[in-house]
Amino acid sequence: MAHQITRDDCRARDADDPLARLRERFDLPQGVIYLDGNSLGARPRAALERAQQVVAQEWGQGLIRSWNTAGWFALPGRLGDRIAPLIGARDGEVVVTDTTSLNLFKALAGALAMQEQRDPARRVIVTERSNFPTDIYMAEGLTRWLDRGWRLHLVDNPDELDEAVNSDCAVLMLTHVNYRTGYQHDMAAVTALAHQHGALALWDLAHSAGAVPVDLHAAQADFAVGCTYKYLNGGPGAPAFIWVPQQHQAAFAHPLSGWWGHARPFDMAPAFSPADGIVRALCGTQPVLSLALVECGLEIFEETSMQALRTKSLALTDLFIELVESRCGGHPLGLVTPREHARRGSQVSFTHPHGFGVMQSLIERGVIGDYREPHIMRFGFTPLYTSYADVWDAVEQLRDILDRGDYRIDAERGAVT
Amino acid sequence: MAHQITRDDCRARDADDPLARLRERFDLPQGVIYLDGNSLGARPRAALERAQQVVAQEWGQGLIRSWNTAGWFALPGRLGDRIAPLIGARDGEVVVTDTTSLNLFKALAGALAMQEQRDPARRVIVTERSNFPTDIYMAEGLTRWLDRGWRLHLVDNPDELDEAVNSDCAVLMLTHVNYRTGYQHDMAAVTALAHQHGALALWDLAHSAGAVPVDLHAAQADFAVGCTYKYLNGGPGAPAFIWVPQQHQAAFAHPLSGWWGHARPFDMAPAFSPADGIVRALCGTQPVLSLALVECGLEIFEETSMQALRTKSLALTDLFIELVESRCGGHPLGLVTPREHARRGSQVSFTHPHGFGVMQSLIERGVIGDYREPHIMRFGFTPLYTSYADVWDAVEQLRDILDRGDYRIDAERGAVT
Repeated sequence: MAHQITRDDCRARDADDPLARLRERFDLPQGVIYLDGNSLGARPRAALERAQQVVAQEWGQGLIRSWNTAGWFALPGRLGDRIAPLIGARDGEVVVTDTTSLNLFKALAGALAMQEQRDPARRVIVTERSNFPTDIYMAEGLTRWLDRGWRLHLVDNPDELDEAVNSDCAVLMLTHVNYRTGYQHDMAAVTALAHQHGALALWDLAHSAGAVPVDLHAAQADFAVGCTYKYLNGGPGAPAFIWVPQQHQAAFAHPLSGWWGHARPFDMAPAFSPADGIVRALCGTQPVLSLALVECGLEIFEETSMQALRTKSLALTDLFIELVESRCGGHPLGLVTPREHARRGSQVSFTHPHGFGVMQSLIERGVIGDYREPHIMRFGFTPLYTSYADVWDAVEQLRDILDRGDYRIDAERGAVT
Repeated sequence: MAHQITRDDCRARDADDPLARLRERFDLPQGVIYLDGNSLGARPRAALERAQQVVAQEWGQGLIRSWNTAGWFALPGRLGDRIAPLIGARDGEVVVTDTTSLNLFKALAGALAMQEQRDPARRVIVTERSNFPTDIYMAEGLTRWLDRGWRLHLVDNPDELDEAVNSDCAVLMLTHVNYRTGYQHDMAAVTALAHQHGALALWDLAHSAGAVPVDLHAAQADFAVGCTYKYLNGGPGAPAFIWVPQQHQAAFAHPLSGWWGHARPFDMAPAFSPADGIVRALCGTQPVLSLALVECGLEIFEETSMQALRTKSLALTDLFIELVESRCGGHPLGLVTPREHARRGSQVSFTHPHGFGVMQSLIERGVIGDYREPHIMRFGFTPLYTSYADVWDAVEQLRDILDRGDYRIDAERGAVT
C-alpha cells in the first residue's frame, strides 16, 4: 500500500458512512468493541420496552386473551414474513419457531420423504465435515432412528462436492456461510449442482440471514432454516426460522406433528391433519416473550437494505484483514477466511497457535470476539453497529497483545455457539 | 345443606386462609376473576424486573459473556432442580427445555427404544382418546416415521386401561390430569398396572405440576414431561420440562440429538455422543428470556407446599361445585369433573348446551375461564391467587348470565391450549 491507513482515515470513513446512524438503535456496553454478533447479536434499544409491554401488558393484563388480542397466534408467521425479504423468500413461506436444530430436523425429514417418493434408491445425505456440528448431529439422529439405510457422506472441503453429489445423493445439506471459517458457498451454483443430479438442496442460513444477501428463490433452493439471535439481533436463544417454498409446501411432512401444525387445532381431534401452508412447520406452543423480541431486531433491517449492509460488511472485513496483516505482520497469524468477496461471509477468522489465550486477552480488554477449535480466533462484523474506528481499535489491541506476549498459553477452554 | 353459603362466609374463609398473602406475589388485572391459570398462569410480580434484568443487563451489557457469567448454560438444569420437589423428582433428573410436545416426543422415543431392547414383540402404545391431542399427534408422528409396526391404542375411558394394558403394550402414555374433564389418574396404581404387564409408564404433568401433589418416584413412574406456563406461572409459552429418573438415564436416547445434549459440545466433533445424565434430553439453543422468567413462578412455590396448595385447591373446587349446583340449579349444567377428591385435578368443568356463548359472556364480564369442545366450560382454580370470594363472585356472574339468558347461542369458536 502506498498510503498507510491511520485511525483518522477510519474515523473519516465513519463520518461518511450512511449506516452509522443505525448504531443508535442498539444498546452497546461502554468500553466494548463487540465483534461477536455472529454468535449473539447486540440488543436493539426497542427490545427493553417491548419486553416490558409483553410481560406487563400482554401477559399480566391480557392474560390468556392475548393469544388473540395481542396477536400471539400470528407471531410465527408475522415474523417469518418480515424475515422473508432478507432471504429472498415470499410471504407465507417462513415461520419463526423452535430452534435451528429442530427446524433442520423437520426440513431434512421433509426432504428425505420427498425423495423417498420420487426415487427411493437415493440414500445419501451429503454435507461437510466442517458443517456446524448440531446440523450433523440432527441428521445423524434422524437417520439413525428412521433406520432405513440413509447415510451421511461428509466431505472435507467444498471442492469434493462435485464428486459427492451424484445419483445416490438424496439431499445436499449445507450451511451457506461456515461458522468457523466464514467461507460462503455459491448458493445458486451449488443448488444447481444438486438439482442436476436429482438431489434436493437444504441450506442453513445461521450465518447468512442478516449478514449477506440471500436469494433463496433465485437460487432455486428447496428448504432453508436459520437463526434469529445472531445477525438478526433477536435476543439470546430466540426462536429460529424455517423456510419451505410454496411449491414444496403441499408435500412437506415431518415427524414433529404438534398441535400448532394441525389444520384445525381447536377441534381437538385425536388424529393429526397438517395445516395448509407453512403453518405445518409449527409444532408446540412457542416462548412468546423471546419470540416477540425478534421483531425489534427485524425492524432495524427495514431502515436499510442487504445490499447496503453487504457493501459495508465487505469494507469492514477488508479493512480488518488489511490492518491485521500490516500491523501484526510478524506474528504467526493465518487467515482462514476467503479473501475473495463472493466467498466471504461477514466474519474474519485467523489462526494463532495460542488463539484461545489471545482471544481471552482481547476479551479482557473489551474486544469481544470468540474462539473455535482448533486455534481459530473469530471476529464477526455487523455493519449495523460496528464502525471503522472499532476495527482500527480492535486491531490495535490485538497488535499490542501479540507484541507484548500478553496472553496465557494454558488458558482453559470453553466457547458458545 | 342446612346453612346456605353467603359471600360473607367466603370472605371469612379468605380472612383465615394462610395462602391468601401469596396473591400479592402476582400482578392481576383489576376487575378480573382469573379462572384460566390452567391454560396460562398469571404473572408473578417479580417477572417484570427479571425481564428487564435479562434484557438490559444480561443480554445488553453482558452479551455473549452471559452464557457463563449470568448462568444461561446452567438454566435448564437449575430450573429443573427447582421443579423437582414439586413432582417427586430428584436433583439432576429434570431439565426445562423446548416444548411439552417435543419433550413428549423425546420421552416416548426413549421408552420405545428401551422396550425394543427388552422385548421387541411389544408394539402397542396405549393412551386415551381424550388425552391432550398434541400428545397423540406427537406419538402419531413418531410412530409413523419410525415405521416399525408401533401402533397407538386409544381407550375411551380409564376403565378400559385394565384390558388395554397387556403383554403387547410397550408404553402406557397418559396425561395425569385430563385437560378437559379435570379427571386425575391414580398415578401409582396405573403405573403399577403398566409395570405388572411389562410396560413403561410415561406421564404428562401439564395439568398436574403445581396443581396437585405428584410423587413420580413413589409412583415408580418411568418418564414424565410437563408444562411451566400453566400452574407454574412461567410465562406465555415458557419452555417445558422433561423428567428422566436416574435409573433410566444411561439407557435414554432420542432422535433430537442437538448440540446441547452432546457430551462435549465445544469440541465441535462431527459425531454425536450423548452427555451423561439429564443433559442428554437437551437439543438446541433455548430462548433464554422466556426460560429465565420460569424462575419467578417457581420461587413462589417455595413459600408454601403442595399439600397446603392441594388443601385450598380442593376447598375452592368443592365450593365452586356446591355454589353452581345450589345457585344455578335450574339450568342445564352437567358436572364433568369427578366429585371424588382423589380423582380431581385443580379445575372444574361443566357442560352447557351453549357453553361457548355462556363462556364468552363470562369473559366479557371479567370472569375468565375457557371453553373446550364439546360444550365444556372449564374453570381453573389456582390457590396461589384465587380467593373464596372470587369463587362466589364468579358463580354469581354465571347465575346472572344463565338467569337472564345473557349469552349468544351462535358465537364463533376459538380457543387456546
